[in-house]
Amino acid sequence: MRSVSDQLAAVLGAVGPLPPLEVVLHDAAGCVLAEDVRAGADLPQADLAALDGYAVRASDVVTAAPDGDLTLRVSDDVRAGAPDAPTLVVGAAARIASGAPMPGGADAVVPLARTDAGDARVRIRAAVRAGDGVRARAVDVRSGEIALARGTRVGAAQIALLAALGRPRARVHPKPRVVVVSVGDELVEPGKPVHVGQAYDANGHALASAVHDAGGTTFRAGAVPDDHSRLRELLEDQLVRADLVITTGGLSYGAGDTVRDVLAGVGTVRFDALAMWPTRQMGLGEIGDGVPILALPGDPVAALVAFEVFVRPALLAMAGYADVHRPTIRARTTSELASHSGFREFVRGRLVGSPAHGYTFSPVGSPDALQLSAFARANALAVVGEEDDSVAAGTELPCLVLED
Amino acid sequence: MRSVSDQLAAVLGAVGPLPPLEVVLHDAAGCVLAEDVRAGADLPQADLAALDGYAVRASDVVTAAPDGDLTLRVSDDVRAGAPDAPTLVVGAAARIASGAPMPGGADAVVPLARTDAGDARVRIRAAVRAGDGVRARAVDVRSGEIALARGTRVGAAQIALLAALGRPRARVHPKPRVVVVSVGDELVEPGKPVHVGQAYDANGHALASAVHDAGGTTFRAGAVPDDHSRLRELLEDQLVRADLVITTGGLSYGAGDTVRDVLAGVGTVRFDALAMWPTRQMGLGEIGDGVPILALPGDPVAALVAFEVFVRPALLAMAGYADVHRPTIRARTTSELASHSGFREFVRGRLVGSPAHGYTFSPVGSPDALQLSAFARANALAVVGEEDDSVAAGTELPCLVLED
Repeated sequence: MRSVSDQLAAVLGAVGPLPPLEVVLHDAAGCVLAEDVRAGADLPQADLAALDGYAVRASDVVTAAPDGDLTLRVSDDVRAGAPDAPTLVVGAAARIASGAPMPGGADAVVPLARTDAGDARVRIRAAVRAGDGVRARAVDVRSGEIALARGTRVGAAQIALLAALGRPRARVHPKPRVVVVSVGDELVEPGKPVHVGQAYDANGHALASAVHDAGGTTFRAGAVPDDHSRLRELLEDQLVRADLVITTGGLSYGAGDTVRDVLAGVGTVRFDALAMWPTRQMGLGEIGDGVPILALPGDPVAALVAFEVFVRPALLAMAGYADVHRPTIRARTTSELASHSGFREFVRGRLVGSPAHGYTFSPVGSPDALQLSAFARANALAVVGEEDDSVAAGTELPCLVLED
Repeated sequence: MRSVSDQLAAVLGAVGPLPPLEVVLHDAAGCVLAEDVRAGADLPQADLAALDGYAVRASDVVTAAPDGDLTLRVSDDVRAGAPDAPTLVVGAAARIASGAPMPGGADAVVPLARTDAGDARVRIRAAVRAGDGVRARAVDVRSGEIALARGTRVGAAQIALLAALGRPRARVHPKPRVVVVSVGDELVEPGKPVHVGQAYDANGHALASAVHDAGGTTFRAGAVPDDHSRLRELLEDQLVRADLVITTGGLSYGAGDTVRDVLAGVGTVRFDALAMWPTRQMGLGEIGDGVPILALPGDPVAALVAFEVFVRPALLAMAGYADVHRPTIRARTTSELASHSGFREFVRGRLVGSPAHGYTFSPVGSPDALQLSAFARANALAVVGEEDDSVAAGTELPCLVLED
């Protein structure tokens, strides 16, 4: 039997960051930068007015006061986007809009509210210091600086900065493309009639959603029966679009060992019994031209736990993330947890609490029955180590946090 | 001036959960259920083998032992998906695959490893109790039970349960469709040349990404100049696809008050100066046939902060979430924060720490300069209240956590 730690190391050893790709901003969202983004110009490229008002030389308005009568000739009206900022003659002011380039010679903006908003001449009611009301050239980024470092996740703020620097594209590790194949004679597509002994294909749909949540894109290849040639054909067809293949089911001796037999012919895959519950076995290897494949059990709870423990970290590693693990929070279990010595158990339950007051973990459903209904109410997996054969109520355990 | 609390209450008062829609599972992912999902049948619908082995009557194998010679006739081979489970005659065993329906009369499964795996007759090397190795009918969900409650977020586990119950569709609050319009004569699409005084449209791209992260879908209408008739036409064209419209920019008197003037003609929108930094003003109202609209400032940092504080909660409310706020963590600031009394300030910075050891907050960049480069390095917004005019290093502040 293989330990969870050894299996996780093997999974992460089988994958790595996908080769970088230059993509448009929209497609870069959610990806990890594969380049240092260097500013090609200052941001902003010129001194700009930070607010609506009048651009002045500060030295021309030192005597201005709320009740004073200092007035200046208005020589210009500068709007944002204006192609050329005029040069301000001494003793004049330019009406200026927020975001518009400062006229040459002007070094401050008097806010509109501190003036009489005059057209030909303007009464200035407040003195300003040089730099007041100005958004200085390069205050955000200086030309040549690294604005965003390789390894940064591209979210809304990073998209804003890329766009502000004029970059329509960015070089990122692309989202992993994952083919999901459910295997089993018993599987029926939801919505169709079933007879006793058949089951709806839960894994295909659930894993597609889990892959999406982990930042991947999925091609759900549908469910195939325990039919060696059909599975072989399907895998060969799908390989062209796959960075990773996930199968579920077909690992049972009683069902003809479909996945084990087919993968023996098309790749190098090893199957291990795991010292783990509820995921008891798994296949890991490569098929086709080096595409990694993970063969998960058919039971949906066992498959979803395997996804959290092994597949999600693999997808994040492929997407270029350095930290590939769910956050872990330590929490006290509210009830005793039975466990099998020698196995690492992932117990489904509810984590509640706060950083200030600590956290508690309460298992949901029956720990041994694999209940999707319980998993669907869980927000965490408490981890009971291999050395424990039961855990008393009140014991602190590490818990994988499943919800964002 | 309007307070942040009053403005947030007004924004949340202007939106509500979108009318429910029946969608396929794939589209339900990430949405909130608008129905109680009741099981139409037991899950599983019959007693199933939980593992590969031999289905037996437990009472037939009470004398079985590792070195014993108890053998049973093998009367059947039951595979998963088999249409009809045979009935087991007394003294016989049925070879059975994991997931296959239990034969009538059988009440336990002897694991394959505890047998000689015989074909015509099988040697049983271990006694079992009734129920051992059986996944009992309805152990997951009983017919008629509410399997998933209205208000539940549909993630991978919920998709699994819906599919397992045979549901190809679910009734959810759909993802909000958001039209994003950037307004300003100075705006240029990234990748095109700019002259001094122009700026790249950062908001259109960034807000599209932020809307996506918040679970909405975006139609980026592109940037329009400060041209009343073009903005009016664009809004009228886009309204058919919008649950919410966001504009940025065009709020400056100096730029002709484009957004204010156009919205006065096509809707009921009020504009307020906010007791807030860095977002100093905002419009809120309805246009067309009751579509809510939020008019944000043109500065990208001010717009992104407004998104976090007002728009994201609005989108989550429209998507049917009860809790619409980012998690808040209390952290000690590592340096003094200057602040303007009477304004609620949202300071960009890095939150580090852990529940066990507490958190610290360090501002990034210059607090007064609106730097996208600093926002792009921030993972939190520290909130300095209206009553404070400066906050000493070491003070604990609530921080909005921006990263998942």
